[in-house]
Amino acid sequence: MVKALKSPKITLVGAGPGDPDLITRKGWKALQSADVVLYDALIHPDLLAEIPSGVPCFYVGKRCSQHSFSQEEINRQLVDCARFYGHAVRLKGGDPFVFGRGMEEVQYAKSQGIEQIEVIPGISSAIAGPAAAGIPVTSRGYSNSFWVLTASTKTGELNKDLEIAAQSSATVVVLMGIQKLEAILDLFQQHRKMDTPVAIIQNATMPDQKTIIGEIGTLSCGVAKPDPKAAGLVVIGEVVNLASQEMIKAIVNQVK
Amino acid sequence: MVKALKSPKITLVGAGPGDPDLITRKGWKALQSADVVLYDALIHPDLLAEIPSGVPCFYVGKRCSQHSFSQEEINRQLVDCARFYGHAVRLKGGDPFVFGRGMEEVQYAKSQGIEQIEVIPGISSAIAGPAAAGIPVTSRGYSNSFWVLTASTKTGELNKDLEIAAQSSATVVVLMGIQKLEAILDLFQQHRKMDTPVAIIQNATMPDQKTIIGEIGTLSCGVAKPDPKAAGLVVIGEVVNLASQEMIKAIVNQVK
Repeated sequence: MVKALKSPKITLVGAGPGDPDLITRKGWKALQSADVVLYDALIHPDLLAEIPSGVPCFYVGKRCSQHSFSQEEINRQLVDCARFYGHAVRLKGGDPFVFGRGMEEVQYAKSQGIEQIEVIPGISSAIAGPAAAGIPVTSRGYSNSFWVLTASTKTGELNKDLEIAAQSSATVVVLMGIQKLEAILDLFQQHRKMDTPVAIIQNATMPDQKTIIGEIGTLSCGVAKPDPKAAGLVVIGEVVNLASQEMIKAIVNQVK
Repeated sequence: MVKALKSPKITLVGAGPGDPDLITRKGWKALQSADVVLYDALIHPDLLAEIPSGVPCFYVGKRCSQHSFSQEEINRQLVDCARFYGHAVRLKGGDPFVFGRGMEEVQYAKSQGIEQIEVIPGISSAIAGPAAAGIPVTSRGYSNSFWVLTASTKTGELNKDLEIAAQSSATVVVLMGIQKLEAILDLFQQHRKMDTPVAIIQNATMPDQKTIIGEIGTLSCGVAKPDPKAAGLVVIGEVVNLASQEMIKAIVNQVK
């Protein structure tokens, strides 16, 4: 165990969906007062460049199935860093509590006796991803609710809640859904109308954002070609029809 | 119709759940470049105080059933302001696309020929509200998904999706749920275990935040006394058990 130089403190900060200006002021201030930063994959380099010089920054990212660091390793490194440097900022993509495993980091730190722990929320791609394609997750007359799920459970199986989601009238947002796209569309074809619109959004809020819009009955015929390597989300529901006409034109061109 | 002095532009900005530091940098920058601001109820006065002096600010809020301004009036005033002043910033609580009627404002502005429209997301209280009480909407081993609903439909009836939500294993977040609390708990008692934990959070992220935690089987016996005048949300699901022990102690004291 390393010895504390300063009183150890941990702040989990949600960096938002990609655009470095979508961090909150509170998160940015925490970053400015950091003695050390541990950051995820998908954190924008411009945001990292704003960390005061001399503050050590450690990459602890995971990408798709390539786990550079296990969650247990990250937990330990975070606590060690807080003990050694003082204020450790854990900069995470999106929001720390939306499939971010933030609570596991909080609980481990508490179990190790770290008393000063704060969690600063971030803009979640579950909401801002669709918004960046002009799609509101709710809108009067279109949707009274939205349901956010991952495609797979931790054992790699299709999330069972997806079947209930398909039967509801909620806007359904599936995170990390690209790998399971065919299975998701199959499920929704059984329970919703074939012309229910669906959008696939990758690299949301970034200059290389890619959006594909179609219907659940046709998207599965191999028309859509999402980038299998990029993170992406799938939005299913009538609100997809609210995406701007310019957007839809762009997609039609893309699909042709 | 008023005549444009500058090229009209509209930016919808999500101010976040309450804490004035939870606005994004992008939203704050938009506010600094505003020629006019139209703001909601529940926007923090400290944030309004940061708007450059001389920029006209109009209150267009609604509170509970007291509709000071109809949505149609807000739509018209927003477009008129953009035409008269130039860059109109519409500062909204939470996120503009999460039950914020943001898309209605975008569509009206488009229909009136406003071409420059941008939507900047905000931290939604649907996620940050539970987080402020130490509750992650998802966490491994507790919940694979979260479902955000309003308690009532626009006609005032109980949202029918709540019945499906009660049957799912999702973390359920009900916005504007205080008035329908008894009906919501009745529904969940029929479909989930009586000891399923529930949290009621009011004025989330603010100094006067109030949190009540209990179980769906007991909270309905009149133990909980949420403030009927304050905005609030209800969180139902096992993740509520992750709220810090200090938090739970505080609530037990409160209930006694």
